Amino acid sequence: MQSQNVQRKVLRTLCPDAKGLIAQITSICFKHQLNIVQNNEYVDHHTGRFFMRTELEGLFNDEALLADLDEVLPAGTVRELNRAGRRRIVVLVTKEAHCLGDLLMKSAYGGLDVDIAAVIGNHETLRALAERFDIPFHLVSHDGFSREEHDARMMALIDTFAPDYVVLAKYMRVLTPAFVRHYPNQIINIHHSFLPAFIGARTYHQAYERGVKIIGATAHYVNDNLDEGPIIIQDVIHVDHTYTAEDMMRAGRDVEKNVLSRALYRVLAHRVFVYGNRTVIF
Amino acid sequence: MQSQNVQRKVLRTLCPDAKGLIAQITSICFKHQLNIVQNNEYVDHHTGRFFMRTELEGLFNDEALLADLDEVLPAGTVRELNRAGRRRIVVLVTKEAHCLGDLLMKSAYGGLDVDIAAVIGNHETLRALAERFDIPFHLVSHDGFSREEHDARMMALIDTFAPDYVVLAKYMRVLTPAFVRHYPNQIINIHHSFLPAFIGARTYHQAYERGVKIIGATAHYVNDNLDEGPIIIQDVIHVDHTYTAEDMMRAGRDVEKNVLSRALYRVLAHRVFVYGNRTVIF
Amino acid sequence: MQSQNVQRKVLRTLCPDAKGLIAQITSICFKHQLNIVQNNEYVDHHTGRFFMRTELEGLFNDEALLADLDEVLPAGTVRELNRAGRRRIVVLVTKEAHCLGDLLMKSAYGGLDVDIAAVIGNHETLRALAERFDIPFHLVSHDGFSREEHDARMMALIDTFAPDYVVLAKYMRVLTPAFVRHYPNQIINIHHSFLPAFIGARTYHQAYERGVKIIGATAHYVNDNLDEGPIIIQDVIHVDHTYTAEDMMRAGRDVEKNVLSRALYRVLAHRVFVYGNRTVIF
Amino acid sequence: MQSQNVQRKVLRTLCPDAKGLIAQITSICFKHQLNIVQNNEYVDHHTGRFFMRTELEGLFNDEALLADLDEVLPAGTVRELNRAGRRRIVVLVTKEAHCLGDLLMKSAYGGLDVDIAAVIGNHETLRALAERFDIPFHLVSHDGFSREEHDARMMALIDTFAPDYVVLAKYMRVLTPAFVRHYPNQIINIHHSFLPAFIGARTYHQAYERGVKIIGATAHYVNDNLDEGPIIIQDVIHVDHTYTAEDMMRAGRDVEKNVLSRALYRVLAHRVFVYGNRTVIF
Repeated sequence: MQSQNVQRKVLRTLCPDAKGLIAQITSICFKHQLNIVQNNEYVDHHTGRFFMRTELEGLFNDEALLADLDEVLPAGTVRELNRAGRRRIVVLVTKEAHCLGDLLMKSAYGGLDVDIAAVIGNHETLRALAERFDIPFHLVSHDGFSREEHDARMMALIDTFAPDYVVLAKYMRVLTPAFVRHYPNQIINIHHSFLPAFIGARTYHQAYERGVKIIGATAHYVNDNLDEGPIIIQDVIHVDHTYTAEDMMRAGRDVEKNVLSRALYRVLAHRVFVYGNRTVIF
Repeated sequence: MQSQNVQRKVLRTLCPDAKGLIAQITSICFKHQLNIVQNNEYVDHHTGRFFMRTELEGLFNDEALLADLDEVLPAGTVRELNRAGRRRIVVLVTKEAHCLGDLLMKSAYGGLDVDIAAVIGNHETLRALAERFDIPFHLVSHDGFSREEHDARMMALIDTFAPDYVVLAKYMRVLTPAFVRHYPNQIINIHHSFLPAFIGARTYHQAYERGVKIIGATAHYVNDNLDEGPIIIQDVIHVDHTYTAEDMMRAGRDVEKNVLSRALYRVLAHRVFVYGNRTVIF
Repeated sequence: MQSQNVQRKVLRTLCPDAKGLIAQITSICFKHQLNIVQNNEYVDHHTGRFFMRTELEGLFNDEALLADLDEVLPAGTVRELNRAGRRRIVVLVTKEAHCLGDLLMKSAYGGLDVDIAAVIGNHETLRALAERFDIPFHLVSHDGFSREEHDARMMALIDTFAPDYVVLAKYMRVLTPAFVRHYPNQIINIHHSFLPAFIGARTYHQAYERGVKIIGATAHYVNDNLDEGPIIIQDVIHVDHTYTAEDMMRAGRDVEKNVLSRALYRVLAHRVFVYGNRTVIF
Repeated sequence: MQSQNVQRKVLRTLCPDAKGLIAQITSICFKHQLNIVQNNEYVDHHTGRFFMRTELEGLFNDEALLADLDEVLPAGTVRELNRAGRRRIVVLVTKEAHCLGDLLMKSAYGGLDVDIAAVIGNHETLRALAERFDIPFHLVSHDGFSREEHDARMMALIDTFAPDYVVLAKYMRVLTPAFVRHYPNQIINIHHSFLPAFIGARTYHQAYERGVKIIGATAHYVNDNLDEGPIIIQDVIHVDHTYTAEDMMRAGRDVEKNVLSRALYRVLAHRVFVYGNRTVIF
């Protein structure tokens, strides 16, 4: 009868470490007759922070649950109760198709529990690709606008879609601090390099010139500027002397799209905690 | 004046090893005033076979060049002179979208020098995906046909497109010997497993049951049956106890599509030699 | 005053899943004023098993703690309270030096918290290597003995060292069921292949003949025969057509020794749970 | 009768690219009745350089062969005729044992065709380890010496062993330009980082602070300072938030020793060409 109300939610707790936290939190869940489907916790003894992700199943009384938790959790605790399930994103692009294509495929055919509310480009190039998948494409050209004006127009448009996350799928613009602050821990970027090895725009050419034998990609939150922020996933591939900068770019595209979608997968499942410049990933 | 005729071609030589082969072949190229852009050779001392791939640039007189080569090359030599450039493929599918999606993206937006002449499915499932990219989709249902009859209908249809290669992008049918013989060294398959570890249909479930810590995918020529044939590329990812068979399947899809397209990339560039059950890849 | 008694121990619980287990176990630890340094748990929803590893710090009253736990834990629970710290192993070898060398190095110079009580070989070959590191070497030749007799002599000798684990570092003998039963979940083997791909003795030659592009190694518990048992760690390296079987063997040796020592590292830290033919690794 | 003189040598050619080079060089080898066991060449079209490694077998008349080559090779050619087989190295160390231990094992038990003429440390720490393997250890303390004086003493000692290569196996001293110039393309270093990501001494701590998800190691020639120079091999491992800087260091040690010995393997086989800040590796 009430089974229609059985839900799955993810409780996330980030607080100063203290003795008995796991027992207290899980006891409250137990008292609420919620089943713990999966639980992960981690204590960073370096900074004295406690992180816990608790996947719960049952009949939720959110307010009562959170009130009970607030009674035992220390001051300064961040706790969230997220529903499980599909999330909504807006994807920002410039001209390169590979990351957008992978997101469109996985949204439409499985692999990411995500609805793409819109694709926004600062060039027209990828309109056709978005529209192949029946996703609205919006051009917000930066021509004739200051960086601040352009970002303001972007924000105004993005906010109409109320996305959970903003995904930069090879969006080749430096963001303004105002933009970054507007979406705290909500912007995911794919960087076409193995951070912190090479920063900037022509990283494959830098890598070629340096004669590296490995190239990679980094997915990270944007909290400051395009090339910094807490790292979520990194991966690499081996290259050799026969690779031109263009070959590295071609091979790197597969790494970039894989790393971006693996990072998103974890973010969407509420598995990534950010603190300072680091991430805890369960 | 004649510069419009400057072409790039790939000369491939596979023959019994003999002293002086490199000198003789490259001398003939030199005599024809062809520039060697890239040259790779390999001798398998185990079997006494000589393999050479020579990428040439210049004004070609194909007949004269091959005639000169035939004078010096030993009996039993296989030599081909392939034009460089885009190739034409037909893609066979069943219901899974990820490999087809990646091929469509790379054909349309770069990454593979390939035109997809048609997508042929034994189910309707992927018609919409092919048509999103303006590629014709053909249903050749196996319902009510013997395996031989179905393959005969497939071959008849495939041959109307005169493809260079037939790519099995998660085509979940066992091929008849007649089909395989009809496309010698032209059929590329992606196997959803790390061959020869698990063979058959439910390999991710087998992998889960066995408690493996690595899963992988294998791209190979089909010369016999669906799960055998000379291996082109293999790759793996690490998994752990938290992966269900379904999680392995999801994670495995990225490996599968990457491995398939990396294999195709090398095949299309005439970089893969087959001999017996092995490949030489330059 | 009592601070000299502060200890670190690892509590391991493996039982049927039930609501409230985490809360109950951690509450008992809390009641005993033990600090949870690190906690990991996992529920296999497929089999309904609950696994938890709790690293505790404080003043232990082992009997009281276990008695309290037994009151709340369901029937059929396996729980252990292991002291942290160095463990003692016996290493079994035949003729190949690389895995033994790595264990000797890491035992003597850091990397594994392990004391090697003895090296036992069925050949004299590695005596000098063991003795370079001042570890006693014992020859137990199989010449003139049945497999059962030889294993009985091995067991008698091994037991004099009372090891925590028996490590097969390229020990090329098939073990008798009696031997395996005598050391339940205590025997760790390195298999020179990527299980279940190739089984048996000449796996590199099998891999070469098959033309594989990846070779690997598997560290696993021995519970049945030499090539089966729950997998702990696997890893691979890429090879190409230029590798002879001997080249594969040489390259494979580095993978073998790395995989074996990474597996041991986790086993020694009480991070590996075995159930059926699978492992949970925290 | 003369079969006792059949030798294997490696001819290396590095010169400006020109039409017909492969034909000319291999024709001369053919004329000298030398069998080409293996041949690799590469043209860097970016810089117009031609690289060729030719492994030859037969009866050598070195002077005649080189004279014939000099007649056809362009000005500015570097060509060497190296005997195949074991090489002699001197290993420089400070306090960390893992790389030295791996070199000692592989020199003594197979894996590297190398004789270690001596181990030289600026601390006593690793004397016992070298002597376990009957390799002479020399202390050249830097106490009370300027960098220049210390390096001069090192060079004087190293030169008494006439090594083919000087291997820095975690030698934690910055080298003087005089030292580096004294051993051109003969010094191999293992850098405890994924260059160019982190440079300097405490790279694992830098990596930890940055929250990276991958750590690695780089083997490179030293041509300038300790952390630069042409890269030979790089590899990485994945880490996560549970790794402290010390855990990264422990895990990184296995990568370091593997990368160093894989780089040495290629250098010893005359497979690595250096030009500018890059390497070509056959």
